[in-house]
Amino acid sequence: MDIATVNELPYEDFVNIFGNVVEKCPIITAAVWSRRPFGSLNALEAAISEFIDALPESGKEGILRCLPDLAGRDLQNGTLTRESREEQARAGMDALSSEEASRMARLNEEYKERFGFPFVICARMNDKENILRQLTERCRSERQVERARGVEEVKKICRLRLQALVLSDAPNKL
Amino acid sequence: MDIATVNELPYEDFVNIFGNVVEKCPIITAAVWSRRPFGSLNALEAAISEFIDALPESGKEGILRCLPDLAGRDLQNGTLTRESREEQARAGMDALSSEEASRMARLNEEYKERFGFPFVICARMNDKENILRQLTERCRSERQVERARGVEEVKKICRLRLQALVLSDAPNKL
Repeated sequence: MDIATVNELPYEDFVNIFGNVVEKCPIITAAVWSRRPFGSLNALEAAISEFIDALPESGKEGILRCLPDLAGRDLQNGTLTRESREEQARAGMDALSSEEASRMARLNEEYKERFGFPFVICARMNDKENILRQLTERCRSERQVERARGVEEVKKICRLRLQALVLSDAPNKL
Repeated sequence: MDIATVNELPYEDFVNIFGNVVEKCPIITAAVWSRRPFGSLNALEAAISEFIDALPESGKEGILRCLPDLAGRDLQNGTLTRESREEQARAGMDALSSEEASRMARLNEEYKERFGFPFVICARMNDKENILRQLTERCRSERQVERARGVEEVKKICRLRLQALVLSDAPNKL
């Protein structure tokens, strides 16, 4: 799909296609539709980033709270969105040993208890060992640091989802 | 559910319960969780309103674009959220004559074409005749007027959804 095609989409199609590039936040996609035409995919991505950056801190925390835990309840119950399911599977989150799974669950709870939002990391850019290591380290971090890191990870996830949707000749390109 | 119970909910339960009080915008619910404790249901509602009011105009349009058409494709395809389905059914949107249905479809398209977001009205506070009359009139309105009206209707819908969830002894109280 080229950017000219993207720019011609009515808002309903635009939201249907791109509504989950920020997990469960179609409002963000729907808002940036107002910014058409986009000169490039990068410009669309930048518009999304700018919208996120302009939100109050509570809004940024709201975005984080819309993301599922890694290897958490939604994965176990089969209630992940398609995008999250694929990303978590690629990072091996659906094939943890029982020891790894319980360690992940314990750390996720510790993180959420401490910060009031979930641990967010771009799973497609990390493997299982790296995710467990970072989760362990970040549990000892500070709230505002983690909020900012989480938002940066959301933007990485968004970029990869956008690329997969638009660059259909290179859907897996990282 | 009393407000003390609401205030004790972890964010995941809070978002699961209240995530659709603004249609398909769980980010808003998830954001206002940061504002706990709430003194009353009205305070929770006010926090949601304040969050919406603080969004840029594009964000307000984004909220409107997350709402389904009345008697539109989602109703026909069975893809409305539970809340929208009940609200549209109460207003008779699922039982239009073929003449009414085609008139509604034509006016919805005209409205979206003109403003770039859907016609939004609190269906539970209106009946079929009133909805068709207002849609006809508002098609001739101005964009910024309609954006503001749509947002006020979203807040009415939100208030009724909140009441139905919290005041379980009076779920249908208007």
